[in-house]
Amino acid sequence: MKFSPLVQELIDSLKCLPGVGAKSAQRMAFHLLERNRRGGSKLAHSLSKAMVDVGHCQQCRNFTEHELCEICQSPKRQLATTLCVVESPGDVLAIEQTGEFTGKYFVLMGHLSPIDGIGPDDLGLDILAKHFASGQFAEVILATNPTVEGEATAHYIADLAQEYQINMSRIAHGVPVGGELEYVDGNTLSHAFSGRKSYQM
Amino acid sequence: MKFSPLVQELIDSLKCLPGVGAKSAQRMAFHLLERNRRGGSKLAHSLSKAMVDVGHCQQCRNFTEHELCEICQSPKRQLATTLCVVESPGDVLAIEQTGEFTGKYFVLMGHLSPIDGIGPDDLGLDILAKHFASGQFAEVILATNPTVEGEATAHYIADLAQEYQINMSRIAHGVPVGGELEYVDGNTLSHAFSGRKSYQM
Repeated sequence: MKFSPLVQELIDSLKCLPGVGAKSAQRMAFHLLERNRRGGSKLAHSLSKAMVDVGHCQQCRNFTEHELCEICQSPKRQLATTLCVVESPGDVLAIEQTGEFTGKYFVLMGHLSPIDGIGPDDLGLDILAKHFASGQFAEVILATNPTVEGEATAHYIADLAQEYQINMSRIAHGVPVGGELEYVDGNTLSHAFSGRKSYQM
Repeated sequence: MKFSPLVQELIDSLKCLPGVGAKSAQRMAFHLLERNRRGGSKLAHSLSKAMVDVGHCQQCRNFTEHELCEICQSPKRQLATTLCVVESPGDVLAIEQTGEFTGKYFVLMGHLSPIDGIGPDDLGLDILAKHFASGQFAEVILATNPTVEGEATAHYIADLAQEYQINMSRIAHGVPVGGELEYVDGNTLSHAFSGRKSYQM
């Protein structure tokens, strides 16, 4: 015995969400059917719209339903000379929330991962090369994640930028602010030592 | 700065799923947009269909898109004299998979919980009373969860069934098969002792 066809189909479809297995999908389906039909219908509506209408910004590859995303459209950033390369749209949001950076972004939408078949073309590095060639940017900040894949991707992009004689920088790795030295892993700690700066009074 | 309107709307809608917060919703939205648009569209389609078409079986209250669910329609069960009361459709599936029970079900879709405003009417106990009154059932098996709310609900239903002089039984509580005594909690173990049966060779 299985659930009725429509319910079973809903459970199977929910399994396409990352981190959702058979039991979670079942719980989600029951919750929506029993307690939140309006929320379920709203989700169906946003999903179908987003899946069709959301594309990539032609300049920075971030998600947007227009040709250019909000940041690339912004007149304040039109003449920015710094380009920050990140892995995902979530990274853009996190950096924007600091208010520290006023340049432009380039979103790779992943990292180089030959084992998953993700090569330079999948990350839009051809578009990135065009940005480098345009001569607009004087500095590229490599803000990929400090993982093995992120480092490899940063290295690859640095190679690319070198051809165009653009200054490259990598975001600093070290002890997180508010963290305790005792609980920081050894690798981070050695980065923090090798990247030490002269103390300013 | 936020994400583009459609993406933000998708993230907000995903938060209606149980156990999904802001970060998980973001991860799900990016995953669907970047890696599985087809899955996302399929989910949208099944969701919108299920939210509109799936209702409750008029006899047992289980989810179904027809008037009666598969089990209530089954000719083999039409004349069943045993009624098993469970909390959720998942419980029906679990019991069906044992192949042990061939009677009918009644699905409460929850348990009594005054603090959440869930009373007897929300659990369809008026429909259940009609089943009792019909005289079809000689035995009611109370298979609500062995939690405080589940026990309270079982007690309430037992009260109801008593008026109609129907035999009542409660599923056995004890040590799970394959479990080790050492790791079983004290409450379960005392249930296992008080519910002991004479050993049959």
